[in-house]
Amino acid sequence: MELYDLTLSGNCYKVRLFAALAQQKLDLIPVDFMASEHKTPPMLALNPFAEIPILVDGQIVLRDAQAILVYLACRYAGEAWWPGEAHLQGEVMQWLSVAANEIQHGPNTARLIVKFNLPANASLAKARSQHILALLNEHLDTRHWLAASRPTIADCAVFPYVALAEEGDLSLIDYPNVITWIDRVKQLPGFIDMPGLYRHGANQLSANERSSISGLI
Amino acid sequence: MELYDLTLSGNCYKVRLFAALAQQKLDLIPVDFMASEHKTPPMLALNPFAEIPILVDGQIVLRDAQAILVYLACRYAGEAWWPGEAHLQGEVMQWLSVAANEIQHGPNTARLIVKFNLPANASLAKARSQHILALLNEHLDTRHWLAASRPTIADCAVFPYVALAEEGDLSLIDYPNVITWIDRVKQLPGFIDMPGLYRHGANQLSANERSSISGLI
Repeated sequence: MELYDLTLSGNCYKVRLFAALAQQKLDLIPVDFMASEHKTPPMLALNPFAEIPILVDGQIVLRDAQAILVYLACRYAGEAWWPGEAHLQGEVMQWLSVAANEIQHGPNTARLIVKFNLPANASLAKARSQHILALLNEHLDTRHWLAASRPTIADCAVFPYVALAEEGDLSLIDYPNVITWIDRVKQLPGFIDMPGLYRHGANQLSANERSSISGLI
Repeated sequence: MELYDLTLSGNCYKVRLFAALAQQKLDLIPVDFMASEHKTPPMLALNPFAEIPILVDGQIVLRDAQAILVYLACRYAGEAWWPGEAHLQGEVMQWLSVAANEIQHGPNTARLIVKFNLPANASLAKARSQHILALLNEHLDTRHWLAASRPTIADCAVFPYVALAEEGDLSLIDYPNVITWIDRVKQLPGFIDMPGLYRHGANQLSANERSSISGLI
């Protein structure tokens, strides 16, 4: 299985993270994004949207990080990360939409502006980020995980750009439940890092919580 | 099953349309959006995002049109509209992400600006709309349906704001495959309308095509 990949892309990291958590092996094919390799004919043939990640699994070619997560979880990970029950799929899907919409146009865009000089409206990206971070914080006030009372692809889809928020000059200080959730995700067995992830407060989980996480997967 | 609904919302129409196509009965509860009813405490208790549609099915409460489509299709419509195979779920999911991201921030936003005076960047919404309409047109050059070679919830999720594009002062004239696809969706058994949908060219399908569609569902 090949993943067309960029180390600094949170969208690519969603896939790398999930594959690591679900113990799936990916062959990473680095794409020279800065040289616009994603816009060359061979890459456009794989993904006309001119974006990465792209997953190639034999004859199957998929774009969009959320779609790749659904595929990998459904095909290779049983129902652990992508439940079979309709209402739980709905719960997870709510957060896949948040990843594609509110996170993409909030913390992701804020980071692209600060880190990669994307010409976009910084105050709008900041306002959108604060809005979704507040909703996330409220949601996580009574839950350990975003959906289905266990770690799912919803967490994998939302985690990267939230944990990278500080690279977009967004403080997480007002969102303590989000910080705790970031730490919780980091404790998942098989977790892998990427450059720029939020650091403060790691390893704050109780032994009990850590063992209950281990039991879930 | 109750749907908190607004007639003029394309996101609500996604759910009404799918329920009609899949022969599921919804009790519609109109929300007075103009009076900000969606921001009142009882509505925020159902959906902290302060958005509609919201589906209530017994104890289950779901927000986000795409999540509601996944739930309804998975729970009530077998695999006809939401395939069980991993690669087909991935294919459908690609377009659910497009509905949540590119369509939301393209044709949906363009329409909100023109029709409801949303204060947003009109030229950005137009550029994003033209980008996704061109990609859709290219995709539909070799396909009748967005995913899985048959009508799925992908079509239901993308259709409304594309078919409402002219209400956002977006012409579809340069996207003939999109126009044909709109007509094709309109021919699906059980199809229901909403105010403002694209009109030109309806009923252009051949008798053969119409009968092959009927056979699919």
